[in-house]
Amino acid sequence: MPIRRPVQGKLLYAQSGGVTAVINATAAGVIEAARARGVKAYAARNGILGALREDLIDTGKESKAAIAALRHTPGGAFGSCRYKLKSLEANRAEYERLIEVFRAHDIRWFLYNGGNDSADTALKLSQIGKAMGYDLRCIGVPKTVDNDLAVTDCCPGFGSVAKYTAISTLEASLDVASMAETSTKVFILEVMGRHAGWIAAAAGLAGNGPDEAPHVILFPENVFEEAAFLAKVKATVERVGWCTVVASEGIRNSAGQFLADAGTHDAFGHVQLGGVAPTLAALVKQKLGYKYHWALPDYLQRSARHAASKVDAEQAYAVGKAAVDCALAGMNAVMPVIVRISDAPYRWKVESAPLAKIANREKKMPKGFIARDGFGITAAARRYLAPLIQGEAVPPYGTDGLPRYVTLKNAAVERKLPAWRP
Amino acid sequence: MPIRRPVQGKLLYAQSGGVTAVINATAAGVIEAARARGVKAYAARNGILGALREDLIDTGKESKAAIAALRHTPGGAFGSCRYKLKSLEANRAEYERLIEVFRAHDIRWFLYNGGNDSADTALKLSQIGKAMGYDLRCIGVPKTVDNDLAVTDCCPGFGSVAKYTAISTLEASLDVASMAETSTKVFILEVMGRHAGWIAAAAGLAGNGPDEAPHVILFPENVFEEAAFLAKVKATVERVGWCTVVASEGIRNSAGQFLADAGTHDAFGHVQLGGVAPTLAALVKQKLGYKYHWALPDYLQRSARHAASKVDAEQAYAVGKAAVDCALAGMNAVMPVIVRISDAPYRWKVESAPLAKIANREKKMPKGFIARDGFGITAAARRYLAPLIQGEAVPPYGTDGLPRYVTLKNAAVERKLPAWRP
Repeated sequence: MPIRRPVQGKLLYAQSGGVTAVINATAAGVIEAARARGVKAYAARNGILGALREDLIDTGKESKAAIAALRHTPGGAFGSCRYKLKSLEANRAEYERLIEVFRAHDIRWFLYNGGNDSADTALKLSQIGKAMGYDLRCIGVPKTVDNDLAVTDCCPGFGSVAKYTAISTLEASLDVASMAETSTKVFILEVMGRHAGWIAAAAGLAGNGPDEAPHVILFPENVFEEAAFLAKVKATVERVGWCTVVASEGIRNSAGQFLADAGTHDAFGHVQLGGVAPTLAALVKQKLGYKYHWALPDYLQRSARHAASKVDAEQAYAVGKAAVDCALAGMNAVMPVIVRISDAPYRWKVESAPLAKIANREKKMPKGFIARDGFGITAAARRYLAPLIQGEAVPPYGTDGLPRYVTLKNAAVERKLPAWRP
Repeated sequence: MPIRRPVQGKLLYAQSGGVTAVINATAAGVIEAARARGVKAYAARNGILGALREDLIDTGKESKAAIAALRHTPGGAFGSCRYKLKSLEANRAEYERLIEVFRAHDIRWFLYNGGNDSADTALKLSQIGKAMGYDLRCIGVPKTVDNDLAVTDCCPGFGSVAKYTAISTLEASLDVASMAETSTKVFILEVMGRHAGWIAAAAGLAGNGPDEAPHVILFPENVFEEAAFLAKVKATVERVGWCTVVASEGIRNSAGQFLADAGTHDAFGHVQLGGVAPTLAALVKQKLGYKYHWALPDYLQRSARHAASKVDAEQAYAVGKAAVDCALAGMNAVMPVIVRISDAPYRWKVESAPLAKIANREKKMPKGFIARDGFGITAAARRYLAPLIQGEAVPPYGTDGLPRYVTLKNAAVERKLPAWRP
């Protein structure tokens, strides 16, 4: 079946999965680039669900100032979702529904802003579009605090959670150091990271050498060895007077069990974690007798736009703009990715990579990033991580002392199809 | 016994109890004011313990730049401690030891930077000095994130934790709102506050009206009523789609039990808390079936100098400077306090108040600050709280993307006395 090249049409942008401090900067990049090219941009309300339900938002109803303010507003301005499309074989109807919605609204470019799962969805959509004779360009746009996307040097969203984590580790450690003589000896910070210890590793930027915090980092890449952990904590307290531990939520024991399995699962079948820090704290108390405190910032870490990395905010915007460039250049099934040119000074550029090389893959930390004893980061890790937290991108504040985050109007596009019956 | 007026002598500054994001700004105020007046300033290492042990620091060894950098460095630069002196009757020897140390180093002004307990210690020391014929001026300097000191309109340290809490509530709620359709419906943020709900109340500044986060604030001033709490959460999720709860660590049930009693106690006999958030989360899951997330920032909240309130940082500096002015003016057993002149525009000044009116008292939130249904703040609370988070006092950042916090040399003063044998 011959495919007609679109001479006009609309662009649809959707946010997917866990949001970040800078995903809206990507949205701003997309919308501002589309406007500059004279292309009408819709957004899907609550991610791919909005596309399935034909619940579309006309971003043309938003002012220039509102779109510009997305650059410094955390969360997902159009709503995101955890909804994984089944395989083409298992539920072809869902993919066909999406094409039907796109056809009804003359959507010719679909930009899907997410992680590995979303790259897979965008890839499948590009295939089914072709199969159904509907000319559609699908572009994945990288986003994840987990920094686990293949091909790209780093993932927009990660640099800001990395910076938040390093700053928080530094600040809380100054607190602990002040009080250790009579109070808390061991402080445990639990950070996100199910399978890859990128965020935990970033905490390592807070200090240098064995006496500076964090003294112990626990990576999901390593099996948690209780005896070695306790020995390291004890030695640190005896030498330094106190000890800061940064633990990835995803650490497991030698039996492969998560240290803190909350017992529930999200829509992707991932175990919902939380509670490594109190588990470790109880262990420290019981086995070493030290007074402890622990913190679990949870969503605070990935929404902390007030402490965002300038590099991260700029890259998030750049991939949004590049995604529009790719789409309008007629590319399909690709993702704009960050390419590192040099570490110091840090230089980077955006290129495009095939979604097929990204979908459903997971980038682990290189083994060479974890110190030999398993509890710290190496010089190679520092070289990689350090540039990603550089620069501040402080949001504007109101006279009320709070950041001026924007809430969009999110005006609905009139529906043209019958309701979706899953 | 006649008391000789000191014509010369030294000043001793000590930090007490939990540190804050701006306690070092107070230290900067003290040291810079002392330098300006030509008075030598010592600091006690690890608070009152350093005074008992004759472990004193000569702040004269620090550069002007290092002292200036204290204005933006969190934690306690000289070390703090949780060590409560017993009553004069129970352990007069401790008070006499302090006077002995002061006498050995010609310390004529003692500035004690802490909360209600420390105000009590400073008051007792002023009395024992008099009784022992040693001319000593004791000045309390206010500091506590708990905002529970009597007389002063607010406490240095509170404004910054208030700002951090309001910003974090706002940011995490934007995250939850984006994802609520398919993911977390209820987000619970646990904040500090054993007996008074000031920090929890400050979260209320993040939003306005019943539909904006936080939707539910749990105050230690109220008995926790499970049924009313669950009903409010359920109604909010049904109306708004999601619900943000901010819970004070100190909330108790109708039997007077803390919802999350960790079972351990600190040096002051206070129960060490932590874990209200997971307790509430489990309740929400079990009774309402909603997916939840919870955060417990712990020390992150009180050390978050990167997000400090400008008003708070300025007041912290001002009370340090005023404490020196009081001391050198010959005042004794007083504390510089913040007096509010007007709400909008916010105007304030520093006056002095007798320690006898402050020691061991605890300021609760006015009943009129809590909304009638018990789950929010009133317009009166907003009028009081809003000015305290105004303005940003962003610390300088290095090219590494981290705030440039200072670590002092803390050079020890030579000992003149035998070791302390408690």
